[in-house]
Amino acid sequence: MRPPLLALLTDFGTRDWYAAALKAVLLSRCPTARLVDITHEVPPQDTVAGAFILAAAVPWFPRGTVFLAVVDPGVGSRRAIVAAKADGRYFVGPDNGLLTLSLQRAKQFTAVRLTNPRYWRTPVSATFQARDIMAPVAAFLASGGALTGLGAVLSHLSPLALPSVRQAGSTLRGHVVHIDAFGNLVTNLPASSLAPPSGSRGVTVRYKRRAVRVVSSYAAGGPSELVAVVGSLGLVELALCRGSAAWTFNAARGDEVEVRQA
Amino acid sequence: MRPPLLALLTDFGTRDWYAAALKAVLLSRCPTARLVDITHEVPPQDTVAGAFILAAAVPWFPRGTVFLAVVDPGVGSRRAIVAAKADGRYFVGPDNGLLTLSLQRAKQFTAVRLTNPRYWRTPVSATFQARDIMAPVAAFLASGGALTGLGAVLSHLSPLALPSVRQAGSTLRGHVVHIDAFGNLVTNLPASSLAPPSGSRGVTVRYKRRAVRVVSSYAAGGPSELVAVVGSLGLVELALCRGSAAWTFNAARGDEVEVRQA
Amino acid sequence: MRPPLLALLTDFGTRDWYAAALKAVLLSRCPTARLVDITHEVPPQDTVAGAFILAAAVPWFPRGTVFLAVVDPGVGSRRAIVAAKADGRYFVGPDNGLLTLSLQRAKQFTAVRLTNPRYWRTPVSATFQARDIMAPVAAFLASGGALTGLGAVLSHLSPLALPSVRQAGSTLRGHVVHIDAFGNLVTNLPASSLAPPSGSRGVTVRYKRRAVRVVSSYAAGGPSELVAVVGSLGLVELALCRGSAAWTFNAARGDEVEVRQA
Repeated sequence: MRPPLLALLTDFGTRDWYAAALKAVLLSRCPTARLVDITHEVPPQDTVAGAFILAAAVPWFPRGTVFLAVVDPGVGSRRAIVAAKADGRYFVGPDNGLLTLSLQRAKQFTAVRLTNPRYWRTPVSATFQARDIMAPVAAFLASGGALTGLGAVLSHLSPLALPSVRQAGSTLRGHVVHIDAFGNLVTNLPASSLAPPSGSRGVTVRYKRRAVRVVSSYAAGGPSELVAVVGSLGLVELALCRGSAAWTFNAARGDEVEVRQA
Repeated sequence: MRPPLLALLTDFGTRDWYAAALKAVLLSRCPTARLVDITHEVPPQDTVAGAFILAAAVPWFPRGTVFLAVVDPGVGSRRAIVAAKADGRYFVGPDNGLLTLSLQRAKQFTAVRLTNPRYWRTPVSATFQARDIMAPVAAFLASGGALTGLGAVLSHLSPLALPSVRQAGSTLRGHVVHIDAFGNLVTNLPASSLAPPSGSRGVTVRYKRRAVRVVSSYAAGGPSELVAVVGSLGLVELALCRGSAAWTFNAARGDEVEVRQA
Repeated sequence: MRPPLLALLTDFGTRDWYAAALKAVLLSRCPTARLVDITHEVPPQDTVAGAFILAAAVPWFPRGTVFLAVVDPGVGSRRAIVAAKADGRYFVGPDNGLLTLSLQRAKQFTAVRLTNPRYWRTPVSATFQARDIMAPVAAFLASGGALTGLGAVLSHLSPLALPSVRQAGSTLRGHVVHIDAFGNLVTNLPASSLAPPSGSRGVTVRYKRRAVRVVSSYAAGGPSELVAVVGSLGLVELALCRGSAAWTFNAARGDEVEVRQA
């Protein structure tokens, strides 16, 4: 039989006892669980970065995995805490956009707002709801529990605060929305933006006044060549072959990336 | 049945093979154990920081957990190595104060000095007693072994080198004894120091010539307000709402914090 | 029964989703496996550092352990990917020297080149063969699978790019080949180089114009004394007692270390 699998993503770092407290609660309530750290090094309170890393990791985990995701600047406030089921996987975290990307990519999902204290540790700390509310609920789901009973269904989730892609004539303007540890620049431009409209001569991608060649894989670029590929999130990424696009071009989240259909 | 749970805290870092060698020995001798890293990033040889992080993590782990804690500047010297049982949990580490805080907080504990080489890996390296003595003993305890036989009972533990709280009239002077990853300042002032004596008008807390408001939770403070709360160790902590008290006030361990009863 | 044990070493870091994707694939295909991170912080693309850390960790793991090692600057190129069995342990990684040190230290080993896509995830990404080829094969081996069938036997492995020890008369000149997290300097000088030839008066070790005393353990040195010991890899190491030899002497990989037999 497959042991329950719990995957963690937080901005707690690994120098202190916070991630360990979550794990202790999870293993107290679901002793046979396997725990996998996605990362605890999301930049502090950066829900956008957390959302991207989570969404990129999720598809490789088997159905039944429970994801406990905590990047929670609003801890103790009125923001909702949610549990969700999407394509057979489970999610627990604050309703602040962190889970939104992962859930929206699913074929279908159901989310509930956690309101039933029967499933929590008590007393609930005002500063550590991840330990007292989210971890106990994640352990409950990992033990085979159902969403029903945890709280009422949420009709919509908080959106992730992402810039939008603007279209002007045959030009799309998107932005760098994530920079990964290798210095690759993930944009909010969808894969379809690289597909030239029928009858056109193709597309040109520009970043920082520089033409970027569109290739099918990182390896297809030349040495130190900046290339554009469709990454694992279905989004256009800019990468430097055998180097860091982020360092070389002093990239920052929010940088504009342009796709022109000629 | 609950699998054995082993929690690790060291100053080994995660860049080298040292933590992995501990885990390899633990899993060689107790293959069904679940391992949880509390942290491997205790500042090198900082037993005070290690003691605080360990004591903060311990209460969330279930009874039966074995804690292997290694911050050991005296490795290879005559300092004792101990194994202890406290409130149903087990501890293995050097007798240099690292375990002291966790054990003193327990309702009762028994500690023995490890002297019986039957439970060790041999030959014992002079530079890596954690691998050769402590890990094998921790694995033995996680497998259901008893303290008896490991060595003779220790009548007292090495104290943790902490400054003491001084009282002058109605004023208590304590110190910052730990700074956590969020920049919260943990002091050695007990929770009781914030309880005003009967008949008094209350207490005032001061840090770096600044008045600090006493609140019941971090969330109760205003934006960028420095507040004092009773933290999870039963000690007074200073925190900056939505910020790092450590950075903002350039805090250091040893800083004085004053509580005046008016 | 002993659960399968999988040990990971990469240069992926822990900030992103890459190590998590490996673990997700491993646990999807071998759900009962225990995963141990040796490290994910090998300096990017530094196969020499990776090879040393791996070889230092391996002997502490039990027979049957599967090591998945990924430091792979040539991903997507024609370099081979190998699986090997050595002294009862298994290895999967690129054939670029990363595994060489570990395999050469074994009493005997067999290595095959992975060519049979039946054991892979498909489609295989050109940028993440660790996830799509190496992890599935590692999971297969951890589940009890055999090397046979994965591909043809490799007659020789890529060498690890290490400087060689030169001998001139009674003087050996070696080099620092690894610097560990404590600042110890691992050289390529074998233990035998410290054994004085019969009839001689002993050996002198010199580093940066400084005489280095040969001792039997780190603890045998005086405070701040630079000493030479035989380390766990069977190689001469230089260490500073209660300090970092690397910092104090501004050491770098490649530094010359001399042993003179007098």
